[in-house]
This record gives sequence, C-alpha cells and structure tokens, in this order.
Amino acid sequence: MTIIEKILAKAAGKKSVTPGEIVAANIDVAMIHEATGMPTVTGLEEAGCRQVWDPDKVVVLFDHTVPAADSKSAEIEKRLREWAIAQKIKAFYDIKAGVCHQVLPEKGHVRPGEVVVGTDSHTCTYGALGCFGTGIGSTEMAAVFATGKLWFKVPETLKIVINGKLPVGVVSKDLILKILGDVTGEGANYKSIEFTGETIREMTLASRMTMCNMAIEMGAKAGLIEPDEKVFAFLSGRTAQALEPVRADPHAVYERVLTYEVGNLEPQVSCPPAVDHVKPLQEVLGTKIHQAFLGSCTNGRLEDLRQAAEILKGRKIHRDVRMIVIPCSAEVYLDALKEGLIETFIKAECVICNPGCGPCFGGPKGVLAAGEACIASSNRNFRGRMGKGSDTYLASPLVVAASALDGVIADPRKYM
Amino acid sequence: MTIIEKILAKAAGKKSVTPGEIVAANIDVAMIHEATGMPTVTGLEEAGCRQVWDPDKVVVLFDHTVPAADSKSAEIEKRLREWAIAQKIKAFYDIKAGVCHQVLPEKGHVRPGEVVVGTDSHTCTYGALGCFGTGIGSTEMAAVFATGKLWFKVPETLKIVINGKLPVGVVSKDLILKILGDVTGEGANYKSIEFTGETIREMTLASRMTMCNMAIEMGAKAGLIEPDEKVFAFLSGRTAQALEPVRADPHAVYERVLTYEVGNLEPQVSCPPAVDHVKPLQEVLGTKIHQAFLGSCTNGRLEDLRQAAEILKGRKIHRDVRMIVIPCSAEVYLDALKEGLIETFIKAECVICNPGCGPCFGGPKGVLAAGEACIASSNRNFRGRMGKGSDTYLASPLVVAASALDGVIADPRKYM
Repeated sequence: MTIIEKILAKAAGKKSVTPGEIVAANIDVAMIHEATGMPTVTGLEEAGCRQVWDPDKVVVLFDHTVPAADSKSAEIEKRLREWAIAQKIKAFYDIKAGVCHQVLPEKGHVRPGEVVVGTDSHTCTYGALGCFGTGIGSTEMAAVFATGKLWFKVPETLKIVINGKLPVGVVSKDLILKILGDVTGEGANYKSIEFTGETIREMTLASRMTMCNMAIEMGAKAGLIEPDEKVFAFLSGRTAQALEPVRADPHAVYERVLTYEVGNLEPQVSCPPAVDHVKPLQEVLGTKIHQAFLGSCTNGRLEDLRQAAEILKGRKIHRDVRMIVIPCSAEVYLDALKEGLIETFIKAECVICNPGCGPCFGGPKGVLAAGEACIASSNRNFRGRMGKGSDTYLASPLVVAASALDGVIADPRKYM
Repeated sequence: MTIIEKILAKAAGKKSVTPGEIVAANIDVAMIHEATGMPTVTGLEEAGCRQVWDPDKVVVLFDHTVPAADSKSAEIEKRLREWAIAQKIKAFYDIKAGVCHQVLPEKGHVRPGEVVVGTDSHTCTYGALGCFGTGIGSTEMAAVFATGKLWFKVPETLKIVINGKLPVGVVSKDLILKILGDVTGEGANYKSIEFTGETIREMTLASRMTMCNMAIEMGAKAGLIEPDEKVFAFLSGRTAQALEPVRADPHAVYERVLTYEVGNLEPQVSCPPAVDHVKPLQEVLGTKIHQAFLGSCTNGRLEDLRQAAEILKGRKIHRDVRMIVIPCSAEVYLDALKEGLIETFIKAECVICNPGCGPCFGGPKGVLAAGEACIASSNRNFRGRMGKGSDTYLASPLVVAASALDGVIADPRKYM
C-alpha cells in the first residue's frame, strides 16, 4: 500500500484498502477556523447535536481576520469563542496564535499516520509530517463533529521522485511551483501525491510543508511525505502521544510516477491569473510590483523569514513598494525576534503584522487597489484574490525580498 | 501674551493679538492622512488648484487603515499616494511609518512657535513641543493647501498649574483624565489650555504629549506647554531649522487658572459612554473586560510600552482577554524591540500589530462585538467607537496591562 492507503486502512479499522474503495475513517483531529467555522456550528445545532463527539479531538482557531476587522468578524469570533468554551474544547486558539497550518503542528495536533480534517483547503500541509490532512466543507465538518467519522474514497497515488541538490537561490517553493506548472491545476484531482527522493530527504521539515501545502493547487486530496527523524525531532515535546512512522510498501502500486532532477532548477514564478501559470523567473524579470508579501501557511516559517532577511539585511525596500511581513505563528515571531530578523525587516522599512493569514486570501492586511500587483510567498493568485482588479505573482521568499528591493520582479541571486 | 497669542501674532505678522480677534495665520505645516485626506484633494481639484502652495510644508501620511483593509481603503491610498508623488511632496509617509502624531514630531515637522494644522482632531498633541497644533476640516484644509493661510479667532487661554510628584502607579494619563473629568468635555471649548507647574516641568516629553493630546477632549483648540531643554534635545538632529523657545509673558492674561496638587492622585478611568465620565479606578475595579488595547497617539510611545511591559513581564494575560499592543511608530517599535519589550509582550501572549492607529477609532485591528468591553490607553470612548454595541474604558498603560492580566479592570500597583 501507499502511505495514504496505509493511513486510511488504519483509520477505517481494515487490513488493507484499494484506490476507489469507500471507507468510513475515524477522525483523529478536526479543525475549524473563524473564516469557515460558523456553518459547522450552526449546522450542528440545527441537527440537534449538543455536544461534539470528542472535545479533545477538536481544534478551534482564529487566523484569517485577527484581530477582528469589523463588527461582522467580531461577532463571529465572539460566537465561536463562547461555543468552544461551552464545548470544553481545550485546543482553542484565539487571535494570538497564528496560521492554523503552523499552529496545529507546533502544538502537537498533527501526528504521523493520523487523519486530520480542517475546514481549510491547505490542511494538506500536514502531509509533511506523514499525516493525512485534508480540507473539507463546513457542513461536512458538522457531521464529523457529531460522529467522529467521515467517508473517503481511497485516492490513487501519484508518486513524485525528486533527486539532486537545489542550486543556490532556489528553494522548495520554486520546486513545487515547477511541479505545479507541469502537473497543472487539475492534474492531480482527488489523488494523493507522495513526494520522495533524496531532495525531499535532505529538505527541512519547513520546506517539506511548503511542498505539501501546495498539493491542493494541483487538485490533490493530499500531499504526503514519509515521516523521518526530522519529523520526530520536531514533534518531540509537542505531543505526549506515541508516534509511529508510516511508510509506503516497496511494492505499493502508483497511478503514475514522475521524476525530477533539480540540480539545474531555476527560480519559478506563478503568474496571474492561475496558480499553474508558472514561468521561469527569467521570463518575468522587471514586472512592476506595488506590494510584496512574505508570509502565509506556505512560506511564513522561520527559514522563509531567514531567507528574506538575508536579502534585505542592510538594505531598504524600494520607495514605491509596501512590504508586508507576517510570521506565521507567535512561536515563529518570537524565534525571528531572537535571531534579529524582525529588526532587519523594520530597518529595511517593512511592515510587520501579527501572525495570521494576512492579505493572502484578500484579508484586511494589505488589500491591493485595481491595477496593482503583488509578489507574494503565498499560494493562490486568481485575479482579484488580494483585491479587486489586482494581480498576484507567487514566488519564493528570496524572490519576494529581491523584488521588494527593486520595485520590479527581480532575481535574488544578485543579492546573495 | 499667552503662548498661543504669541504664536498666532507671529504667524499673522503682528506685534500682538488679543483673544477674540480674527487673524490670518501663515501655516508652517499642513498634514492630511488617508482617513480624511480625500475631500481635501478632491476639493482642491474641484477649485481648479493644480499645485499646493508649498510642497515642502505639506505632509501626507497613512496611519488609520494600514495596510489597506479592503478595496475602498486600497483605492484611497493609491489615489493619495499618486497625488503626493505628483505634487512632489517629500514628506510622504506610506503605511510603514506609524501614527501621524508621533511621526511628525519624530521627523522634525513639529517645531516650537510654529503653526501646524492637520485633518485630525488630535493634532493638538504637538502643543507638547510648544507648537500650535490643531485639527481642521478636510475642506478647510483644501483652502490651506491652496493659499498657505488660515484664519483663526484668537482663543482665550485656560491655565492649568500642576504641582507635586505623581505617586507610584499614577502617570500623566491619570492626571489628564482627572483634569478632563473636572473641566468636562465642553469646558474648554475653543480655548487654548496652557499646562504648567513643576509636575509638567518634571514630565518626559512623551508624558506631556499625552496631556496635550487630550486637550481636544475638553473642547480645546490647543493644549500647550512651554518648550524646554527636553523638547530641544528631542528635536536635535530631527530638523535643520533653527529653534526658538516661546514663553508666556509674566503678565499674560488668562481666562481662568486651575491649580492641581498631584501628590495624592489616584489612577483614573474614563468610563463609557463619554470621555469626561471619569472615575477613580477604585470605583470600577472588577469590571469585566474582553480586550485590552495598548497604543494610539495618546499612549503608544516607548515609555508607555515600558510601563505596560513592567507589569506583564514574566506573566501571561488572562485566558479570556485579547491584548493588542501597537507601538505608535516604526521608530518606537524598533526601540521597544531593542529593549526586549516586544519579547515580553509576545511571551505574555499579546498580539503585536504594526504601527498605526489600530482599533482606537474602530479601525480593523480589534473591533469589538456587541456587549464586549475594552480597556484602552487611547482617547475616546463614545459607545460603539470600537465596535457596534461595545464599551471602551480609557486608562493608563499600567491599568490596561493589569486589567489584561486579571480579565477585569485592575489596580496595577499590586503588580509593582
């Protein structure tokens, strides 16, 4: 069996499963946030269900509009806050924690071999820890909250084998953008993607999270990486539960195998208006940008901030650019502070916002005007996502930082 | 003559002026921000005026909705940004600078003896530097931008003499709240308030800015303090212009003189629904709060952050409270960072937002839900200001911090 098959078999209490089979899986962790959680709670109430099946397996977190930006978000947060307390949900993270996809791993809610569902499409990020994480609908989540179970059709698995050493100035974001451009936005619909090979084994956990985070952008149900000692080291002290590795069998059957050799990979940019509209950086150099965004569940971790700070240190961003930096959790913010990265960003004249999703989804921390363009380390770029009539280019933290310095899309390698 | 009379006489090119007289004053600095600046620009254009009278005397700054929180604010900022560049305004401060009333003094735009007008009611803050700062309407500002002049009726002056040493745990915010409660919200309508006495002389410039900032809450046209060596030391290196002290004459005529002895002053709280509804802290101890806000042009400076950090160090805010900390400028943020204050706030589980006005005026950084209450270091508290149906209590940074720890309005002295 592949990794996803093993996880689903275990979750369904079966010895084995095969792609296409429908299974009823026990859910280990179910997460809602304030942007999509209300229909879950009202759905549950309308169904007459007074208690969640297991308050210790539910996570409620606020990250999209933190702090509340208007009365609407304030009322939603108040209602969910009161609900979480009434339900005795210990894993309630108020406006101060950060982006769910960073906070859940940090707080030990994401464990290899388990099933985590969330009312957020980038829940697939958790695959970097060998966990089947997937986004589900808000009303679907009401059924999970009531029963602790959810049915899945076992996905076929696309195996992507990546070998070679990433060149200087090229990082995991460039790699996943390259793959996304090749596979296309629908090329992995309802499949599980297993990333493997020496490049993945050499990658930090943070870089692997960037890879799995964008699996959904290819339509995948999950992105998964075999958990290794890096995952276990990260989780050490974060969860009291025993952790078991989960590995694909040597003779697992894959729908397809793609192979990449990354020794000569160039930086990549995903261009509007579609996430799979990926071009080599070279082709878009000089494109004018008005804003640069470093953050999000894709690239707001410590290593991302380090990379950008390396480029920005001792320099100032371009006069005509606003650069918004958002560490993706309070823990990341504190680590960045201690390393002097926040100081570097302020001296470079960036705006440092509190941990959360920031402007990624069009949130109230850097909406663009019509005709403006943003270079962002985030994950989606349909036209207008970050503001009506605006464009978003997706790239690595290095490219984001270099572009903020130049005022146009720029190659970071000249600053390295 | 009183201080305001001397400043207006000079600005009008006259030897002397008397209260009630109408004078046409030359404006030294005219400031707009993005919350109120658009009618100024459109008014100017509709009047057929293509150029401001002197681009070196105009300041354009963004602080209310930074970064842009929606398409509306994004479009306004884009338009004002392009206008400022087209007008060759060197003193254009984009979303990264901070609150205007901190940034203008920091950048040397506020000088003793001069006249600064701004399309913001708390422009009176500048009186702490011996400058006549006052808020004017957006369309009135269009006239200033066109001509460089504005008429004023010379205000009568209310002199407030303050003596004694503020007790431990009692700061300038408590003092100005006490005075405000006594004078009432309309008690100094169109007057200039001169703060003087040994307590004022001993105060830091930051504390004096808190005092003058709230002059408008008594209806005053200005709050003024005779500039001394502290002001000149602060401005040293910030402006190239020669600075002259401006002092009231020994026989200046005052409308009224009030005297305070502060040796036994207690902490004060301004209670909803009116800013002059001031009570001793003792009377409101135990009032439940949901949010605490440390920041704003009233109390977002380094000494305010230091005071709050002193209380919060090594502690965590109450589980049911969100505490929002907003340094009032990038310079203050950087100083706070270097002193370890930001680290203290994060460890205490506060949310640190980027410099700006924050939730003070109901901005998108901590809007409250109906029925919720906030303890804030800011300056206004009419019902619903920080969110429909919500209440705001105004207090010192010390009281804000202590209340965040307890979840109810609390006395900071028990933590000192």
